[in-house]
Amino acid sequence: MNDKLKKPLILITNDDGADAWGIEVLTRLMMQIGDVMVVAPDGPRSAQSNALTVTQPIRFHEIEKSEGLTRYNCTGTPTDCVKLALNEIVDRQPDLIVAGINHGSNSAINVIYSGTMGAVHEGCENGIASIGFSINSHSPEVDFSEFEKYVLKIASETLKNGLPHRVCLNVNAPCGKIAGIRIARQCDGRWVKEFAKRTDPRGRDYFWLTGNFENHEPENEDTDEWAIDHGFISIVPTKIDLTAYEAMEAIRGWEFS
Amino acid sequence: MNDKLKKPLILITNDDGADAWGIEVLTRLMMQIGDVMVVAPDGPRSAQSNALTVTQPIRFHEIEKSEGLTRYNCTGTPTDCVKLALNEIVDRQPDLIVAGINHGSNSAINVIYSGTMGAVHEGCENGIASIGFSINSHSPEVDFSEFEKYVLKIASETLKNGLPHRVCLNVNAPCGKIAGIRIARQCDGRWVKEFAKRTDPRGRDYFWLTGNFENHEPENEDTDEWAIDHGFISIVPTKIDLTAYEAMEAIRGWEFS
Repeated sequence: MNDKLKKPLILITNDDGADAWGIEVLTRLMMQIGDVMVVAPDGPRSAQSNALTVTQPIRFHEIEKSEGLTRYNCTGTPTDCVKLALNEIVDRQPDLIVAGINHGSNSAINVIYSGTMGAVHEGCENGIASIGFSINSHSPEVDFSEFEKYVLKIASETLKNGLPHRVCLNVNAPCGKIAGIRIARQCDGRWVKEFAKRTDPRGRDYFWLTGNFENHEPENEDTDEWAIDHGFISIVPTKIDLTAYEAMEAIRGWEFS
Repeated sequence: MNDKLKKPLILITNDDGADAWGIEVLTRLMMQIGDVMVVAPDGPRSAQSNALTVTQPIRFHEIEKSEGLTRYNCTGTPTDCVKLALNEIVDRQPDLIVAGINHGSNSAINVIYSGTMGAVHEGCENGIASIGFSINSHSPEVDFSEFEKYVLKIASETLKNGLPHRVCLNVNAPCGKIAGIRIARQCDGRWVKEFAKRTDPRGRDYFWLTGNFENHEPENEDTDEWAIDHGFISIVPTKIDLTAYEAMEAIRGWEFS
């Protein structure tokens, strides 16, 4: 078949694992606009960030092959999934990489911890338009129906327009009724009171990660947190060049000699 | 003791694990300028990025307490180590967080995979001046002696000047003779040919992460890769606000309705 007649190839992964409902919904949606390949972790990999598996090998195996859809499970992290797909599985470069739909928001500082966004950063590094989709609920049965048409629209517009070099998209939706889309910036804030302490039967303490997000700028209407809190989908264009260019000149003035 | 008379408190971690030589060197150096607390992973956690341990609890235990130095081992990732230290171990806010000295460069895109830089990002999120130190060799016995005086100087200048909000430092050194320091930006590039394929005795394939770094701009003299390749230490001021501000306006023009 002539390449120009081919549908776009869309690579899908996530960090909640191949069995999560969010990736099932995302797969169904993406099949409306392209040929789909899913390479997803074989279990939950939340909060894996851009982590790579380096101390042991990884494997993948095909679990489904039908018209317009091929699915593989992978033993690695979300970032491993994208690397393995691009290096060892695909026979042509994907036109789009999408990750999610994540059960839980990846707004604000969560973008740096998210395995979903780790996969998106990896796609971006490889010069492929990449989007992370998340919804602001950890419920495995969260209702994605309001979000669906926006996911399709954002993916279609990204395929049409492309993205700037080293820029990807972090898309987060509120639960329930959606008021529209806001192009937003990453909210300033941090996690506090992060551990729940328990004591084992031998009297030794152990700690579960938990915590509360502290929004440092709840009054500002241009952040992703504000958007989600007010019923909007936030789209944050997100960089993989982490250089703080505006700080370079000041540091050049330090006394290093 | 009056707070003003106290030495600065310096929190140290790494991703090569508590037994690595790099953290031993860094600890010795930091004891020259402050009181030191080490909270390090109890084994190698390379390429763990900003990953968090969420599916199991974590623990820490004290392994040394002497004048000016307390050391703990932790079962988590480098980012977990910083979170646990700040939430559960320290009795005052550290004045500086340093990670490393990493065996292996964290220049260019490696900044997003690095567990060392994951710890640094975490310190930065918590409003503490934070620096990652790495050297361009994976050898466990690499010679840090040329790098040592620069590590001290960079840490001292950071204590003196502080860092801008949401900015940390990614410092990478060449091996051997050092020509000086360059304030640089993150080089553009990506990893290619990333997997070594093996076959197990049952005939199933498995894949080890490996690969080559492809520098997309070897001619540009303002990057961290150029600096290290030419015998300089690179200091890249690094952001945890990943927003691509310059891309927002274009995306506002997309047809979402």
